[in-house]
Amino acid sequence: MSGRPEIFRTVREVRTAVAEKRRRGRVGLVPTMGALHEGHLALVREARRLSGWTLVSIFVNPTQFGPGEDLSRYPRDEAGDLAKLAGEGAHAVFAPSVEEMYPEGFATRISVSGPAEGLETDFRPHFFTGVATVVAKLLLATGPDLAIFGEKDYQQLTVIRRMVADLAIPVEIIGHPTIREPDGLALSSRNVYLTPEERRIAPRLYATMAEAAAGIRSQGEPMEILLAARRALSEAGFRLDYMELRHALTLQPVGDPRNDPARLLAAAWLGKTRLIDNLPV
Amino acid sequence: MSGRPEIFRTVREVRTAVAEKRRRGRVGLVPTMGALHEGHLALVREARRLSGWTLVSIFVNPTQFGPGEDLSRYPRDEAGDLAKLAGEGAHAVFAPSVEEMYPEGFATRISVSGPAEGLETDFRPHFFTGVATVVAKLLLATGPDLAIFGEKDYQQLTVIRRMVADLAIPVEIIGHPTIREPDGLALSSRNVYLTPEERRIAPRLYATMAEAAAGIRSQGEPMEILLAARRALSEAGFRLDYMELRHALTLQPVGDPRNDPARLLAAAWLGKTRLIDNLPV
Repeated sequence: MSGRPEIFRTVREVRTAVAEKRRRGRVGLVPTMGALHEGHLALVREARRLSGWTLVSIFVNPTQFGPGEDLSRYPRDEAGDLAKLAGEGAHAVFAPSVEEMYPEGFATRISVSGPAEGLETDFRPHFFTGVATVVAKLLLATGPDLAIFGEKDYQQLTVIRRMVADLAIPVEIIGHPTIREPDGLALSSRNVYLTPEERRIAPRLYATMAEAAAGIRSQGEPMEILLAARRALSEAGFRLDYMELRHALTLQPVGDPRNDPARLLAAAWLGKTRLIDNLPV
Repeated sequence: MSGRPEIFRTVREVRTAVAEKRRRGRVGLVPTMGALHEGHLALVREARRLSGWTLVSIFVNPTQFGPGEDLSRYPRDEAGDLAKLAGEGAHAVFAPSVEEMYPEGFATRISVSGPAEGLETDFRPHFFTGVATVVAKLLLATGPDLAIFGEKDYQQLTVIRRMVADLAIPVEIIGHPTIREPDGLALSSRNVYLTPEERRIAPRLYATMAEAAAGIRSQGEPMEILLAARRALSEAGFRLDYMELRHALTLQPVGDPRNDPARLLAAAWLGKTRLIDNLPV
C-alpha cells in the first residue's frame, strides 16, 4: 500500500512534474474517464511495470459523447478512483476541468480516416474526432514516454496508434488485453447500467463471439458464421449495432481470415446499455 | 561564415539530434517551404538570437495546395537554400521527402475553426487544414523549444498559435515582422512569378493598405475607407480576393478599431500571381 497519488489540475503543473520525473526514468500514462474498475487497474499495474513513475489521467471528455448519449449520467467517483489508485501505487493523477482542456475559444479538431471509418463511426459519427483530439491533448500536455490503452476499445486503440504515427507524437502506445469477469463479460464502466436480468444475459456477447471466432478459425466461411452469430445474439435479447470481421491492423474488411491477422468486433445494446467487445480470430 | 548545415531526411534522425542539442541549450525551428529569401533569413537570424542551435525545415507541403494551385511550379532550389543557410550560420536542415511526412496509410487531419474561418479560407478552403496538420507534425517530429513564423502569413500564424495552445503542443510560437523590398512589397517566394510590369504595380498593394490603415487610425469610418482602397487597387490592375479589417488576435470582425487591436489583411491577384499582405491598424 502506497501513499495517495499527487493530483494535478492544470497542464502547466502536470507538464512540469512529468518533465522532472523523466530526467530520472520512464514515465507511463494511463488515460481514463474515471469510474475505475479492474480493467483500468490492470493498465496501471502494466504502467508501473514498464515505467518508474505512473500517471493516470481522469477526464470525462464531453466531445466524444453524441447528443442523447450518456454524458450526464456517466459514472463519476473521484474519491473512489483515488483510493483505488493509491492501492495500486499510482504516483500521480491528472484530473483537469473541462475549462482547462477546452478553454474559451478552443477551435482545433483532429480527425482520422482509415481505421476510424465504419464500425463505431457508423453509430457514433463524432466519437473518434472527440477521442483523437482529447488523447492528443492529454499526450502532449503530459508528455510521457509511454501510454497504455485497453484493447477493449480496439478500434479506439487502432485510431490512436494511427494518429500518433501520423503526427509523429513522441510517445510509445501500448495496448493491453481486455480484462473480463469470470463469466467472460468485458469489464466496462458502463456495466453498472445493466439491470440484474441484463447482467445475466450480457456474457453471451463474448461467448457468442468466441464461438464464432473459433468457427472462422477452423472452417473459414466467415459470412455464414457471422450471420448465425448475429441471429443468436438477437434471439438472446441483444440489439446489435454491428458484428464484423476486420483486418487486425488496418480495420479494413479482411479477405481470407486464415491468411491475414483478423479481429472480430461487435457493439450491441441490452436495454439502454451499449456493450462493445472484440477478440482476435 | 559557418560550415554547411547538417541535413536530416527522417523524423527519427532529426528527433534524436534535437533531443541531444536540447540537453545543452535552446533549439529554435524555422519551418519553411524552401525558395528562401531575405524574409526567411531574417527568421533564421532571429532563431539564432533566441536559441543555441537553429534548425530550418524545408518541405513543400502538397496538402496545403488546392487543385489548380501552383504546387508543381512552386520554386524549389535546395542547393541554393543550403548555401544561404550556411551563410547565416543555421546549424541543421530537416528536409524530409513527401513519403516520410505522409507514408502509406496516413489518415490524420487537424482542422481549426475560429481564426481559420473566412479570409484565406473563403478562397483556399483546404489550406489551413493542410497547414495545421503539417506544422503540427513538423513541431512534434523535431521537438524544438521555439518555432518562428513570419507575420507575412498573419492568418496562418494566428491559426498555428490557436492550434498549439489548443493541443498543448510544448513549444513557444514566435511571430516575426514582415520583411519588405525598399518599395514596400512584402517578400514572398511567389514574387518570382511576377512579370516586370506586374512587379512595378505590386508595391501599390502595401502602399494602399498602409494609407487605409492610417485613415482608419485617424478618422475611424473603416467601411468607407476600405471601399475606397478596394476601388483603388482594382483600378491599379489588381483582382482582389479580400481586404478586411479584423481583430488582431481572434481575426473575428472588429467593432471599433480605435478600441480593439485591429489588423488589415488582403489578398490580391496580379495576373497569375496571388499576393497577400497585412499590417496593424
